[in-house]
Amino acid sequence: MTESIEGFWAVVPAGGAGTRLWPLSRRSAPKFLHDLTGSGRTLLQATADRLTPLVGDRLVVVTGVAHAAAVADQLPGMPAGRLIAEPSPRDSMPAIALAAAFVERWNPEAVLGSFAADQVVGDDAAFHACVREAVAVARTGLVVTIGITPTYAATGFGYIRSGSALDGFGSARAVVEFVEKPDAARAAEYLATGAFSWNAGIFVVRASVLLDLLAAYHPDLAAGARAIAADPARLGEVWPTLTKIAIDHAVAEPAAAHGRVAVVPARFGWDDVGDFASLSALLPGGTERPQVLGDRSLVVDRDSTGLVVPGGGRVVAVVGLEDVIVVDTPDAVLVLAKDRAQDVKAVVDDLAARGLDAVR
Amino acid sequence: MTESIEGFWAVVPAGGAGTRLWPLSRRSAPKFLHDLTGSGRTLLQATADRLTPLVGDRLVVVTGVAHAAAVADQLPGMPAGRLIAEPSPRDSMPAIALAAAFVERWNPEAVLGSFAADQVVGDDAAFHACVREAVAVARTGLVVTIGITPTYAATGFGYIRSGSALDGFGSARAVVEFVEKPDAARAAEYLATGAFSWNAGIFVVRASVLLDLLAAYHPDLAAGARAIAADPARLGEVWPTLTKIAIDHAVAEPAAAHGRVAVVPARFGWDDVGDFASLSALLPGGTERPQVLGDRSLVVDRDSTGLVVPGGGRVVAVVGLEDVIVVDTPDAVLVLAKDRAQDVKAVVDDLAARGLDAVR
Repeated sequence: MTESIEGFWAVVPAGGAGTRLWPLSRRSAPKFLHDLTGSGRTLLQATADRLTPLVGDRLVVVTGVAHAAAVADQLPGMPAGRLIAEPSPRDSMPAIALAAAFVERWNPEAVLGSFAADQVVGDDAAFHACVREAVAVARTGLVVTIGITPTYAATGFGYIRSGSALDGFGSARAVVEFVEKPDAARAAEYLATGAFSWNAGIFVVRASVLLDLLAAYHPDLAAGARAIAADPARLGEVWPTLTKIAIDHAVAEPAAAHGRVAVVPARFGWDDVGDFASLSALLPGGTERPQVLGDRSLVVDRDSTGLVVPGGGRVVAVVGLEDVIVVDTPDAVLVLAKDRAQDVKAVVDDLAARGLDAVR
Repeated sequence: MTESIEGFWAVVPAGGAGTRLWPLSRRSAPKFLHDLTGSGRTLLQATADRLTPLVGDRLVVVTGVAHAAAVADQLPGMPAGRLIAEPSPRDSMPAIALAAAFVERWNPEAVLGSFAADQVVGDDAAFHACVREAVAVARTGLVVTIGITPTYAATGFGYIRSGSALDGFGSARAVVEFVEKPDAARAAEYLATGAFSWNAGIFVVRASVLLDLLAAYHPDLAAGARAIAADPARLGEVWPTLTKIAIDHAVAEPAAAHGRVAVVPARFGWDDVGDFASLSALLPGGTERPQVLGDRSLVVDRDSTGLVVPGGGRVVAVVGLEDVIVVDTPDAVLVLAKDRAQDVKAVVDDLAARGLDAVR
C-alpha cells in the first residue's frame, strides 16, 4: 500500500471563503490556507500530504487568482503547470472540468479524484483504502463518490442515497440519487434508514468519462475546458463563458439518474471544519480548561472552557466563562458562545454592511 | 458658591495600581491616567477639574516618579513645585504628610483636603457643598472625613461609625471609630444600623493639625516630612527612612479614639471604579446591547450584553454572551464574566508568576 496508484491524479479545488471561521478565515486568506488543527500544516498542505502516497506528484490544484501565490508558497514542490489559477470564481464544475481536461491530455487513461482543500480526515490509512477501492470502481467507467457515514442528523450537507451492492467490489454500492440539504425531520429519517451518507464532494472518475458525461449534460462546458487545455492562452477568453455550476448538479445528479454513479462508504473520520464548534470538536481537551489553537503560553484562563486562538501575538485572558470561543487576530477579535457558532456568518455580513471590508 | 475657599488646598495622592482593571490599567499607566468614563478626561483630570472650583490653583499632586511625567502632561497648568514625585511608594501617610508640610510652609493656616486621583463623583455641586462643610468643621481643629453612604453591604471598604451630631454644623457628626473591611454578615449589620458610612479616604484637616497629630503618633514621620519641606534637597536622603503606613492607621484611627475626628456624610454619588463590574455600573446603557467604552463603530454585537472596550484599534465582535466584559488593548485581551470581576487581580498575579511582566 505504499506505492502510488498508477494513472491516478488528484485534483484539489482550493476555494470557499470559510466565512463561519472569521476572523481566522478571510476573503484574502480562506480557511484552506490556515493550520486549523495545530498540526503545523495548513488544511491545504494536509490535503496534499494525505494524497501524495496515492498520487506521487500527480496533484493539480485549482484556486482563485488571488490565492495562487499563497498556494504556490504552501506547496513549493509542485511541478510546473499543476497550479491552475481561475480568473474568476465559477463554482466547482468548471474548475474540475478544466483540471480533468489537462489531465486527459497528459494521460488519456487517467483516473482523477477531486478532494476539497479544506476538509479534515481522521485516519489516513482508511482514507487511502477507500480511495483505492473508488479508483478500482472508477476504472469500470463509473463516477464514484466517497460517502461520509452520518454521525448525526445534519442539515448542513447534501445526502447520497445508496442502492444495491456492486458486484466484485468490497463495499461499493450503486447510487440511487443525490438529495439536497434536508430539513431536520428529513435528516433524522435519512439517518434512521442507514441508506444515506453525506455528500462530501469527493468524486473519483476517469477524466475522459467525466468530460464525456459533461459533454452530454453541458456540452459548452466540456468543449470549453478541453479548448483551454489544448491552448492555455485561451483561458482568459473562454473561462468567462463557462456555466457557473457545481459538479453535483452538472454531472453527479444526472449521472446518478442514468445509473452511472457508485458510492464507497467512508471508513474514516471526516470533518469540513464548517464553524468554530466543529473546529473545537476536532481539537483535543477542553473539558476542564479551554482548548488552545496556537501558543498556550499566551493564554491565561480561570474557570473557563471552550477554545482560545491567540493569533495576534497578544496575551488572551479568559475568566469565568463556559464554552466560549475567543479568537484574537492582528486586526479583529471574536468572542462567541460556542452554541452560536453559526452566527459568525452574520457578523461578517454586518462588517460588509458597515463597510469594514478590510477586516472581512 | 463659585469662589474658591480661602486658604483651602487640595492634595491628590495619585497612586495605586488598579490591578482589577487590567489590561486597561497597568503598572506603567495606572487607572488614574485613563479616561474610564468616556468623558474625554482621565480620572486624574476629572479629579482636578472637580477640585478647581474649591481651590483655584492650590492643588498639590503626589505621585510615583514613574508617573510624574504623565501627570505633568495631563495637568499642564500646574504651578511649579506642586507636583511631588515620591522616590518610592510608602503608602498614603508619607505622601500626604509631605504635601501637608509644604502647604504648611506656604500657608501656616491652610486647611488641606486629600482626594484620591481615581475616584468618580456623580454630582459636583453636592460634592462641593460637602467639602465646604468639611472645611468649616476642619477650621475648628478636627480631622474631618467625608463618609460615603453605603448603597449595599460592601466588604471591600473600611467603615466609619458615626456618633452624635456636632453643634453648629448642618450634617457633621463625631466619629466613634474607623473599622476594617468587614465580612459579609458584619457588613449587612453595619448597613442595617444606618450609623456607618464607607471610608473613601477623603480627609479634610488643617495642615498643622495633621502634622501635629502625626507628631504625637509617629514623630519620625512628621519630623521627616517637615525636614524635606524645609530643604527639598533632602528628599532622597529622608524619604526612604519614613514609615510606610496608610493615613487611616497613622492618624485617623488614633485621632478618632481621642475624639478628634468628624464625618460629613456624602450627598453625592461616588465610586472608586474598583473593577470592571463597578466600571460597567458607571456607564450608560447595557441592558439590551453591550456598553462600549471607546469607539462603538469598532464593535459588532449580536444577542450580547455587558461591556466592550475596543482599546486596541481592532474590530471586536461579541456573539451570544450575556454580561460579558471584553477589553481589547494593543498587547492583551481580557474576556471576563462580569460576576467574576474581582478575579482579574488573580490574572495579573498569574502574569507576574509566568514572567509576563511586559503586559502587567
